[in-house]
Amino acid sequence: MHRVKVRVVEDALDANNTIASANRADFDREGVTVLNLMSAPGAGKTTLLERALPGLSVRPGVLEGDVAGSLDADRLADKHIPVTQLNTDQGFGGECHLDANMVRSALPSLPLSEIDLLIIENVGNLVCPAEFRVGEDARVMVSSVTEGEDKPLKYPLMFRACELVIVNKIDLLEHLDFDMEKFDYHLDGVHPGVPRMLVSARTGEGIDEVRDWLVALTTRAGAPA
Amino acid sequence: MHRVKVRVVEDALDANNTIASANRADFDREGVTVLNLMSAPGAGKTTLLERALPGLSVRPGVLEGDVAGSLDADRLADKHIPVTQLNTDQGFGGECHLDANMVRSALPSLPLSEIDLLIIENVGNLVCPAEFRVGEDARVMVSSVTEGEDKPLKYPLMFRACELVIVNKIDLLEHLDFDMEKFDYHLDGVHPGVPRMLVSARTGEGIDEVRDWLVALTTRAGAPA
Repeated sequence: MHRVKVRVVEDALDANNTIASANRADFDREGVTVLNLMSAPGAGKTTLLERALPGLSVRPGVLEGDVAGSLDADRLADKHIPVTQLNTDQGFGGECHLDANMVRSALPSLPLSEIDLLIIENVGNLVCPAEFRVGEDARVMVSSVTEGEDKPLKYPLMFRACELVIVNKIDLLEHLDFDMEKFDYHLDGVHPGVPRMLVSARTGEGIDEVRDWLVALTTRAGAPA
Repeated sequence: MHRVKVRVVEDALDANNTIASANRADFDREGVTVLNLMSAPGAGKTTLLERALPGLSVRPGVLEGDVAGSLDADRLADKHIPVTQLNTDQGFGGECHLDANMVRSALPSLPLSEIDLLIIENVGNLVCPAEFRVGEDARVMVSSVTEGEDKPLKYPLMFRACELVIVNKIDLLEHLDFDMEKFDYHLDGVHPGVPRMLVSARTGEGIDEVRDWLVALTTRAGAPA
């Protein structure tokens, strides 16, 4: 039983990687840099994008992944950011992550020729999104200090599978027992030296650094070979 | 492709329900009431248990579900609560939920004859845990106010699949933009009238109500027919 399950999962991941490569080719053809943005529910991904994207020196677009609803997409559309909603609740209680095929199904509704940087906001979940590549250039995760400093130890794959960790809601630090040194220690334990940025998407603290990082990623990835 | 996937998922859920019934029969034979405790990562499930379980008038035990590590189990063992760790990281990046078979595999290591109330602390995730029954009497979810008031709309199945919603971290309310009326409105939209309790596991506020609820559940479920 367990071996059959392993086979099913491995086959699914193989199929996913094949479709992710096709997405990647499409993004390359359009010169679009793609970022897969992941976090637990309520860590502040959308608020971060509301803060970081308006007025960016490259043209951003967002693909919003949610189990249900279009709340986040509506928030970003209010900021005049091109956004496409992708819901995962077709059929069951809802997929807990985006996969390459779901992203592929959304490509026709994305104005790829009008954007330089596509941010794919994944479903809020610290497990499965880390297992499915979608054709992205980079993966960024947002970890809220309200979640506690033990999260890298409890969800190691997620913290390992990203090129940048954005530590959000630092405006609340003085009201929490969160120990930043311990968090850094745990994070280095699972992903030594991964870059991290301390941010409050609510107050704007640290957002300039995120904006610079996004522009650098886009310029670097989009540069002719 | 999608139809095959639907079939695989339906078969998996059927198999899960069969095993959940077997778990249920074992729990009944031992007279153990079982609660499936769910939340997003870092919502405070373990802190809640640390506060609510010591000195309870029924004998509690905990089955700790985590992708990796035994941090939470260690915390509860420190409080002299019987606890068994169940890790889901065998093979892949880790399962994002507990299923009936995982719980079944842990039954031999649980001292069922010595406990009245078994609390199964699920993996932190607002999607898949709601889809897999494990043989429980009741499902409770913890929603932290730091996650925002929109969560019932974004993860409707989870908020629908529980008999009680514990709204945690209310000690932080004065530092947040969280709108409790909006949260209640959204929650009633997906699960009209579901009982809710306002709690701070950190300060202890509201914990007595949770303790009373746990005892009542145990007494009611364990009462001879």
